[in-house]
Amino acid sequence: MDVEKVFHMNGGHGEQSYAENSHLQKKASDMVKHITLKSLAEAYISTEPESLGIADLGCSSGKNTLSTIREMVEVIDKTTSNTPPPEYRVYLNDLPTNDFNALFKILPDFYKEVNSERHIRCQKQVSSVFIAGCPGTFYGRLFPNKCLHFIYSANSLHWLSRIPPGLYDKDGKSINKGSFYISKSSSLQVAKAYSDQFQEDFSLFLQSRSTELLSGGRMVLILLGSRDRSHVDRGNSFLWELLSQSFSSLVSEGEVKQEKVDEYNTHFYAPSRNELEDEVKKEGSFKIERFEMFKNERYSGPYMSHGTAVARAIRAIQESLISEHFGEKILDKLFDNYGNLIDEEMATDDIKPISFIVVLKKI
Amino acid sequence: MDVEKVFHMNGGHGEQSYAENSHLQKKASDMVKHITLKSLAEAYISTEPESLGIADLGCSSGKNTLSTIREMVEVIDKTTSNTPPPEYRVYLNDLPTNDFNALFKILPDFYKEVNSERHIRCQKQVSSVFIAGCPGTFYGRLFPNKCLHFIYSANSLHWLSRIPPGLYDKDGKSINKGSFYISKSSSLQVAKAYSDQFQEDFSLFLQSRSTELLSGGRMVLILLGSRDRSHVDRGNSFLWELLSQSFSSLVSEGEVKQEKVDEYNTHFYAPSRNELEDEVKKEGSFKIERFEMFKNERYSGPYMSHGTAVARAIRAIQESLISEHFGEKILDKLFDNYGNLIDEEMATDDIKPISFIVVLKKI
Repeated sequence: MDVEKVFHMNGGHGEQSYAENSHLQKKASDMVKHITLKSLAEAYISTEPESLGIADLGCSSGKNTLSTIREMVEVIDKTTSNTPPPEYRVYLNDLPTNDFNALFKILPDFYKEVNSERHIRCQKQVSSVFIAGCPGTFYGRLFPNKCLHFIYSANSLHWLSRIPPGLYDKDGKSINKGSFYISKSSSLQVAKAYSDQFQEDFSLFLQSRSTELLSGGRMVLILLGSRDRSHVDRGNSFLWELLSQSFSSLVSEGEVKQEKVDEYNTHFYAPSRNELEDEVKKEGSFKIERFEMFKNERYSGPYMSHGTAVARAIRAIQESLISEHFGEKILDKLFDNYGNLIDEEMATDDIKPISFIVVLKKI
Repeated sequence: MDVEKVFHMNGGHGEQSYAENSHLQKKASDMVKHITLKSLAEAYISTEPESLGIADLGCSSGKNTLSTIREMVEVIDKTTSNTPPPEYRVYLNDLPTNDFNALFKILPDFYKEVNSERHIRCQKQVSSVFIAGCPGTFYGRLFPNKCLHFIYSANSLHWLSRIPPGLYDKDGKSINKGSFYISKSSSLQVAKAYSDQFQEDFSLFLQSRSTELLSGGRMVLILLGSRDRSHVDRGNSFLWELLSQSFSSLVSEGEVKQEKVDEYNTHFYAPSRNELEDEVKKEGSFKIERFEMFKNERYSGPYMSHGTAVARAIRAIQESLISEHFGEKILDKLFDNYGNLIDEEMATDDIKPISFIVVLKKI
C-alpha cells in the first residue's frame, strides 16, 4: 500500500472527521504547550529575525492547527514589547491527501480574528501573518534552505513513511500474523523491522529539517512513545492489540477473512527515549535541550466513554487505510467493538499510553 | 454576496470541472507563453538569486497550473547552463474556496516527473522545487516582504474583489436591470461603477505586489480586455449579453423570476489598455516593459462546438455564484441555451473577445 497516496486523517467537519475527533491529541499538545511556546520564544530571541519562519508538520485539518498558530503569534508579539513584532511566515504541512480545503476555508475568519486581537494587543499597525499549505511527506525535504526558525510537529512522527518491508517474507507473506503491531506473540524480527524503519525515517527527517532550519532555531516534537524497547506493556502497543482483538470478533462472525487480517500491518512506531536520542546524536546537527515523558490523559467530556473517544480518534486517523484494505462496510462495527474493548480493559486495569516532547536546538 | 467566500472554479476532475473545461484559457496563455518565459528569464538574469521566488496568482486547480510551472523551471534550468540552477520556491495562490486538494493530490507525480526531467537535462544533482499553496485574495497582501522575483497571473485579474456597490441604489436595487455587465442598454453610471471598482482593486493589487516583489523582478499579467472604454462591442461584454439572453428564455418559460435576474450582476471587468496603463503610472513602482493585445482563439477540438466550449468554460467559472443566487436546478438548461446562442451568433458574425498581456518590471 502506498501510504503517501492513501493515508490521511478523515477530512471535513462531519461526525467521523479528524477535526471533530482530535480532543485527545489536543489534550496531549496542550499539556506541554508551555514548553512549546517557551522554545519558540527562545528561538525568536536567539535569532531576532524580521521575518519569522514557523512550520507545523503533520498539521491535519482541524481547528487544533490554527489555535496553535494563534498562540504562537501571541507569545512572540508579547516577547517583542519594545520592538516591532516580526512578519510571520507560517507553513502548514501534511501529506497531499490531507483535507487542506477544509483548513483553507476557515482561514479568512482566522485572519480577521487574529488581526483584531493583534491590533488590540500591540496597539499599533502590525506586520502580517502569512499562512501557506505545503503538501508533502516530512520524510524528505519540504522547505527551502535555511528558511525556518521554528519547527513544530505534534502527534505525527509516530507515523512511519511506509509499512516496514521487513514485516513480509520473500513471498510477500506477513511474518506478524494476527497482530498489526508489536505484540506479546510477535517475534524479535517484527520488533526489528519496525525499529529499522523508524531509524531510517527519523534520520531522514532530521537531515531534512537540519537543512531547512537556521542555526539557533528550535524544533519541538511531540509523539507517542514507548517506555522501553520491548514495546509490550499496557501502553500504545496494547491499543493496537485491542484493535486486532476487535478484528478477531469480525473474523469469528465471518465478516472478515483471517487471511486479510494476517496481511495487515500498521505503519506506526512508538520509539523509546533511547532510540530517539541515539538518532539525534548520530545525525549530529541538533542539541537535545529538553526531553520529557508524559502520560496521555483520559477523555473527560460528557458525551461518550473514554473507550469510545479513543476508538473514534483512531478511526479518524486509520479509516483511510483500513477501508482501503478491508472495505468500508466493517468500519462501524469494528470501531464500536473496539471502543467497548477499551472500556472493558480500563475497568480492570488502566491503559497508559505515553508521549514524549523533545526540544531540539539547531547547532 | 461575499465573493471571497462563494466564488470558485468548479473543483475536481469531473465533466463540469474547471480542470476539464479550461482549454480556452490554456490556449490564451499558450499564445503568449514565449513572452511569459522570456520575462521570467529576464527577471532571473537581472537578479541571479540562489533561491528563485515565483508566484502564480489565481492558479485554480487544473493541470494548466503545473504545466506552466514545469516550463518555467525548464527555461531557468537552461538559462543557467554554466552555473548551478537556483532553488525554486513556487507559490500557488487562489481564493480559499479553490479546490487545492485536487491540485495537491497530483503533486507527488508532478515532482517525480520534474525531478527525472531535470536530472536528464542538467546531468547533475539539482536543487529542489518547493511548491506551496497560498490561499487568499490577491486584492491585498499574500506573501512576505520582498520574497518574489516573478509574479504570473493568467485569466484572473478580470475578476473584481466584489460586485461593484455602485450598481445598487440606496435601497439596494440594481440600477442595471436585465443586464449582468455593461451592455448597450446600461447607463453611464453602470460603466462608472465597474470602472471605479476596477481602479480600486487594481491599485491595491499593484501596491501589494510591489511590496512582495524584489527590485528587478517582473510581473506578467494576462487578462481579458476591452478595445476601448465603451465596452459595447462584440467582445467580452457581448458574451455577458448572450448569457443574460439565455436567462431571458428561462424567465419567459417561468423557470426563473425576472426580479432575480434584475438583482444579479457580475464581478467581472475587462479594462481598456488606457485604464490599465493609468493605474500602473499612478501606483508608480512598476515600469511597463511590454503591452500586447491578442485575440482569443476559437475552440478547435473535435468533441463540441465553439459555443458549447465557451458555455462550459464559463459554467466552470460561474457555477458557484449562479447556483448561490438562482439555485442549481437551472444550470444545465441555462448553459445549453447559452452555447446555442453563441453558435448562432458566430454563424452570422464573429465574436472577438480580446486579451492583454502586460509585462511589468519592479523599479
